[in-house]
Amino acid sequence: MVIDDRFYLSLAINEAWKYQGLTYPNPAVGCVITDKNGAILVVAAHKRRGLPHAELEATYEALSKLNPLLEFPQDPNELHAFISKHHNNLLKNSTFYVTLEPCAHQGLTPPCATLIATLGAKRVVIGSSDKTQKAKGGADILRSAGIAVEEGVLKQECDELLKPFLLWQSGSFSFFKLALRLDGTYDNGTITSHESRVFVHKLRSVCDLIVIGGKTLRTDNPLLDARLVGGKAPDALICTAKDVDKNANVFSVKDREMIVQNSLDFPKKYKNIMIEGGSSFLRAMSDKADRFLIFHSADFSERGRERIEIDLRLKLLYQGSIGADSFGWYYKERFII
Amino acid sequence: MVIDDRFYLSLAINEAWKYQGLTYPNPAVGCVITDKNGAILVVAAHKRRGLPHAELEATYEALSKLNPLLEFPQDPNELHAFISKHHNNLLKNSTFYVTLEPCAHQGLTPPCATLIATLGAKRVVIGSSDKTQKAKGGADILRSAGIAVEEGVLKQECDELLKPFLLWQSGSFSFFKLALRLDGTYDNGTITSHESRVFVHKLRSVCDLIVIGGKTLRTDNPLLDARLVGGKAPDALICTAKDVDKNANVFSVKDREMIVQNSLDFPKKYKNIMIEGGSSFLRAMSDKADRFLIFHSADFSERGRERIEIDLRLKLLYQGSIGADSFGWYYKERFII
Repeated sequence: MVIDDRFYLSLAINEAWKYQGLTYPNPAVGCVITDKNGAILVVAAHKRRGLPHAELEATYEALSKLNPLLEFPQDPNELHAFISKHHNNLLKNSTFYVTLEPCAHQGLTPPCATLIATLGAKRVVIGSSDKTQKAKGGADILRSAGIAVEEGVLKQECDELLKPFLLWQSGSFSFFKLALRLDGTYDNGTITSHESRVFVHKLRSVCDLIVIGGKTLRTDNPLLDARLVGGKAPDALICTAKDVDKNANVFSVKDREMIVQNSLDFPKKYKNIMIEGGSSFLRAMSDKADRFLIFHSADFSERGRERIEIDLRLKLLYQGSIGADSFGWYYKERFII
Repeated sequence: MVIDDRFYLSLAINEAWKYQGLTYPNPAVGCVITDKNGAILVVAAHKRRGLPHAELEATYEALSKLNPLLEFPQDPNELHAFISKHHNNLLKNSTFYVTLEPCAHQGLTPPCATLIATLGAKRVVIGSSDKTQKAKGGADILRSAGIAVEEGVLKQECDELLKPFLLWQSGSFSFFKLALRLDGTYDNGTITSHESRVFVHKLRSVCDLIVIGGKTLRTDNPLLDARLVGGKAPDALICTAKDVDKNANVFSVKDREMIVQNSLDFPKKYKNIMIEGGSSFLRAMSDKADRFLIFHSADFSERGRERIEIDLRLKLLYQGSIGADSFGWYYKERFII
């Protein structure tokens, strides 16, 4: 395997995909830092809103390693300021590999580009360029500081990583979560491992709307909350032509708006939308979901089986494992060549 | 993510899994080399018999990078001798991360342990220790040369990587290859992408026996050869209680022994056995196969579907992607805790 810019950026991309769906309203971004001699100091990613951006997180982790005596503040703003003062040139002539151009704007945290310039990095390798009016311009800040900047490395892969955020930004992002066995079966019971379910609850805690069909409501009677991570339950939309039982569990969750409608259109106010269901709801939603997140538990089962009945051709974007399960992010190929 | 010995060894483990099943009669082994400053020079693996062991391959790739003018011989023996003379201390004080203790014996190629000692490596980090009478003792050679040796890092993961080889060595290794869609369906036609099929043909070219059931013979009428890689077709065993049509394609392949028997026992002379089939043959073989290699194409289909009908609980060992597909190596959990 060739060890080049793409190798390091691949590490950043893979790390970022682990947090895809969890970072709203920020994009999933990964960052690798190598020291002046080219040794990897850290592989990091932005984990969720309110936590450091990938570059700040990576810088923090790298400095923690290089100087274990430094006592870092937790708040990202204070962390940014602290590092700007106390980096002690430990990251001088380092190289940053980031999946997205470092931001140039003051959001919840100060710009990452100025941080990297302050640290005295030698080179920054960037996957996707930032086209957003708000945050673009990071590469220019870096170049002005005399840092070598390479843009567009593994551009396609980095753009795929960024796409859910861009969709969210331009209106809404929706994804269909499906949990199956290796044989494609599923049923009312729990299929995947605890780690996968915790991940799903994290996703729910970040979404503003969760969508299910009437069949799931009647068959599973789910809570659709984020109790496994102590998170806020998203509002819930039940798409059904039939009456629903208002005593169903999903109505019992506090601080949640419930919507029941005989339509598959998402109310306009929601931007980050998670769809859950089985075969019939996948059929209904396969043209509406922007992405598909499919878990496979490592087993086959003959009991109590439901099966997916649909013709659907997807494209694999990222493949990983979590707990005892595998999972993949997919999108629907609109044209089959 | 913490960057430590386990990080580098994980890179070696993942690289080695890509060649699992292709390396017989050698084990799948991965190797990462970092230079005296800790920068990664190479992530390499043993690819197949007759090609360099992981350590020699990694050394060759690292030196090619450090001195592009060196003209290396292709033959592994000559390569070993050439590197011993012309390494020019370029790998002095490097660190080797290997999933298996470097061999101490002269096989098709000279011992890897003496090569690493000659190069003047500073440290060698080892996953699994070599217990085989033939090749053990590499760590001692390294220690005698004044090299720091760490053994047992990520031991469990490295042992899992090595296990197919150990099974092969102690008698035979068999694995069941299954290709499914995301919904668990399959049929007579081609399901997976070209890259996956090439990989399967490579596996066949290394196996000494391919095993199918009578149903596959009658329904698919496969060649079961290794034509996509120009490899030798393995001998073929048809397990069936019925008469078979001797005009079937599988009988037309040259230089192949054909066995037809009303029994599921593999003839003793075969050591590396690949089993292919669908639902009924998986049911028949689920207790006999040492490992399961399961491909999933990225689609769902309602047409011409066959389905797997079995209760089978597996454990995921490695998850990867190839072409448009995902694939995983699994084994059967004998006891559910």
